Amino acid sequence: MPDAPSPIRPTDAEARDLARRLIDTARFAALAVRNPETGLPAISRIALGTDAEGCPVTLISTLSQHTAALRAHPQAAILVGEPASRGDPLTHPRLSLDVRAEFVPRGAPDHAQLRTRWLSLQPKARLYVDFADFGFVRLVPEGAALNGGFGRAYLLTPADLMAKPRSGTDG
Amino acid sequence: MPDAPSPIRPTDAEARDLARRLIDTARFAALAVRNPETGLPAISRIALGTDAEGCPVTLISTLSQHTAALRAHPQAAILVGEPASRGDPLTHPRLSLDVRAEFVPRGAPDHAQLRTRWLSLQPKARLYVDFADFGFVRLVPEGAALNGGFGRAYLLTPADLMAKPRSGTDG
Repeated sequence: MPDAPSPIRPTDAEARDLARRLIDTARFAALAVRNPETGLPAISRIALGTDAEGCPVTLISTLSQHTAALRAHPQAAILVGEPASRGDPLTHPRLSLDVRAEFVPRGAPDHAQLRTRWLSLQPKARLYVDFADFGFVRLVPEGAALNGGFGRAYLLTPADLMAKPRSGTDG
Repeated sequence: MPDAPSPIRPTDAEARDLARRLIDTARFAALAVRNPETGLPAISRIALGTDAEGCPVTLISTLSQHTAALRAHPQAAILVGEPASRGDPLTHPRLSLDVRAEFVPRGAPDHAQLRTRWLSLQPKARLYVDFADFGFVRLVPEGAALNGGFGRAYLLTPADLMAKPRSGTDG
């Protein structure tokens, strides 16, 4: 293939802030996994939140296909950043994250903290969060592609994603 | 693993109609592919429309990562059915489609028809539809999972998806 001009811009503070905001405000995501039987791509919607460090977290049922897929192949990908209902959806910023699934056992030391935080982000999950077949899974970022709209593409590292926002009143 | 009770309901006309409506009204989708270098799942947002037969179609740039991925591994998956901005996103119906990508060459007999239809569905694409690096790709359904909200799951065949709606004023 001939070389194409790279559409990737250098990652800057604005890109890091936008990526962080897309993760922090997402209440759901599209999850791409490998079908455990065929190895082919499979996709589904999951609920999304974060842990205290800002790592994406989901709450899923062990009965679901994506749980079986993540147990067989923990390397997955998620898409966050929902378009507004009007306008060209491809001009709306979105973030594709390569992730590694880490299941959180119910007896893990941080389970109670995750549960409290999850219910603050997803209050309706109170109906099923304690069902025996539901469990938390951390989706640990291993890299990301941010698309801020046509021609505004960035590749981000885990360090970029976990950086403190440059603005705000912290401290 | 112990057997779990199947959450899958028998496919009926209502499920077929809902799946068809989710495809017909989608103007974008999440696309799951395999990274051509690593084989791992990758995900991105694509614009979506349909051809005259109702087959999902996208318009993508050859410069994009997902085009390279689809050329290497045409088996992919898409997710359609966007949640409303309020309420629990997991109660909103969505459709996961297993698809096979078929690139439509610019000289193909149906290219002009696809272009006209695409611009009626995605008017803003007029800005780039004729760029040399953009091309149409049919995403031919090979199977689907419809989730109509908690406990309302169905598996659909390509025939289910391409069935005529039971209601309407056709004919």
